[in-house]
Amino acid sequence: MENKVKYALLIEYNGNGLVGWQRQEAGISVQGTLEKVANQIFNDEFLIQGSGRTDAGVHALGQVAHIYLPSNHPLTSKHPFYIISAFNSFLKDTSIRVVSAKRVKSEFDARFSAIKRYYKYRILCRAAPAGIDKGKVWHYRKKLNIKLMKEGIKYLIGKHDFTSFRTIKCQAKTPIRTLDEVNFSCEGDEIIIKIKAKSFLHNQVRIITGTIVKIGDGTWEPQKIDNILKGKDRSLAGPTAPPEGLYLEKIDYPEDLIKDDWPIIYDNKHYS
Amino acid sequence: MENKVKYALLIEYNGNGLVGWQRQEAGISVQGTLEKVANQIFNDEFLIQGSGRTDAGVHALGQVAHIYLPSNHPLTSKHPFYIISAFNSFLKDTSIRVVSAKRVKSEFDARFSAIKRYYKYRILCRAAPAGIDKGKVWHYRKKLNIKLMKEGIKYLIGKHDFTSFRTIKCQAKTPIRTLDEVNFSCEGDEIIIKIKAKSFLHNQVRIITGTIVKIGDGTWEPQKIDNILKGKDRSLAGPTAPPEGLYLEKIDYPEDLIKDDWPIIYDNKHYS
Repeated sequence: MENKVKYALLIEYNGNGLVGWQRQEAGISVQGTLEKVANQIFNDEFLIQGSGRTDAGVHALGQVAHIYLPSNHPLTSKHPFYIISAFNSFLKDTSIRVVSAKRVKSEFDARFSAIKRYYKYRILCRAAPAGIDKGKVWHYRKKLNIKLMKEGIKYLIGKHDFTSFRTIKCQAKTPIRTLDEVNFSCEGDEIIIKIKAKSFLHNQVRIITGTIVKIGDGTWEPQKIDNILKGKDRSLAGPTAPPEGLYLEKIDYPEDLIKDDWPIIYDNKHYS
Repeated sequence: MENKVKYALLIEYNGNGLVGWQRQEAGISVQGTLEKVANQIFNDEFLIQGSGRTDAGVHALGQVAHIYLPSNHPLTSKHPFYIISAFNSFLKDTSIRVVSAKRVKSEFDARFSAIKRYYKYRILCRAAPAGIDKGKVWHYRKKLNIKLMKEGIKYLIGKHDFTSFRTIKCQAKTPIRTLDEVNFSCEGDEIIIKIKAKSFLHNQVRIITGTIVKIGDGTWEPQKIDNILKGKDRSLAGPTAPPEGLYLEKIDYPEDLIKDDWPIIYDNKHYS
């Protein structure tokens, strides 16, 4: 990779109208859009690798991807602010945004270097469908009991075989995953589920959500989660919650892979 | 008003693409849309009165309006849930939602019975424009200092002549208003200003926001707010902040004007 410099991009997008992260033959993908924009800016071909796929309709507040950019270009010799601005000016008519750009070591890999992934799932529990947040929450017509959901979720925390909680299309070699934490909170009529793990199986967060909601609305007893987990059969679990409530929120990487020697212009520390 | 029963509707809308609350000759208004839907449901002409206008592009989480509905109609003899559902099924393709409906006494007036009005203003402070929240926040490229904004805002709390903080088109008889409370908080890159008063002048929240942001970004000293207020001249204050960051959040009414004898189906108390 001569004359190339590796960057990690922090990417936000509204999943509505997108076929998801991954480049596909038809439809607008985040990966395909960003590669096209890189081509428009640098007049060259680019490959951009994400931390993982997000499905059609799923949103991201903090997707991360790596890309090699030409080191001999005026944009890469300045503060990364200029790279962000260049991408966002071409992305203006989309809902995709490059929020931050940082130089990283060549060992940095958006997918394999990730230490932790954070997702959140938003459920709007009321009679009226979402107005302002149309396409951004799962509209559920019943109220949910967070206490019961907390009782049920405890069976899933830790290292388990999550066969019951992945789509049968999941291509991961092993169904073993370690779920670190699941938190429930509510804001007005909305319930927010926050979930953290090193990595997830395909549809794992949405199937966990679809299942725990059946505990919260009283259909199933909390203990049933344990039976579902031990049964190792997708058909035992609840439905896959719809994509519009799901957000890839944040990904953690080892700090020593980041090579950012630029001062931070946009610094939350200015707040007090 | 024989054979009529008065309802208060709680209304949510995304202001993008709307000409605002008030019915106008051209463009889609919330008032006009709701009157048309009432006509479709009840096959009659209706007038719906809001708590006040919201300008084009301004959002509402909790606008309140009153309307007289026929008392001899099947929908008004059932739980108000059925009225909500009827309105929302006709509103499906808009971003307007009827979130709640309650019977009220004939003295109830959405505008004149209001005790307190709550607005919030969302400012996204980062390099990248809003992606997921496009059209729902004011994108401001500089970080703001909340400590300085708090120092500045204290000059506006209480009863004052707010001539400097209303548009010259404001038709209110008096520029005297009492500002009860202004709070600042931050969530990630976003600053949220919450503001409470019995009533506001035209554009008052947006002009206060546009002015206090000039304190937060260091352009003006906090003390300047006092000079602007005492100068009683609109041209002394900052710009009118754009409509897309503004939300009419909630309105309080005297509880004894509400005549709701139906059980609450959608009850936050189910959460625990």
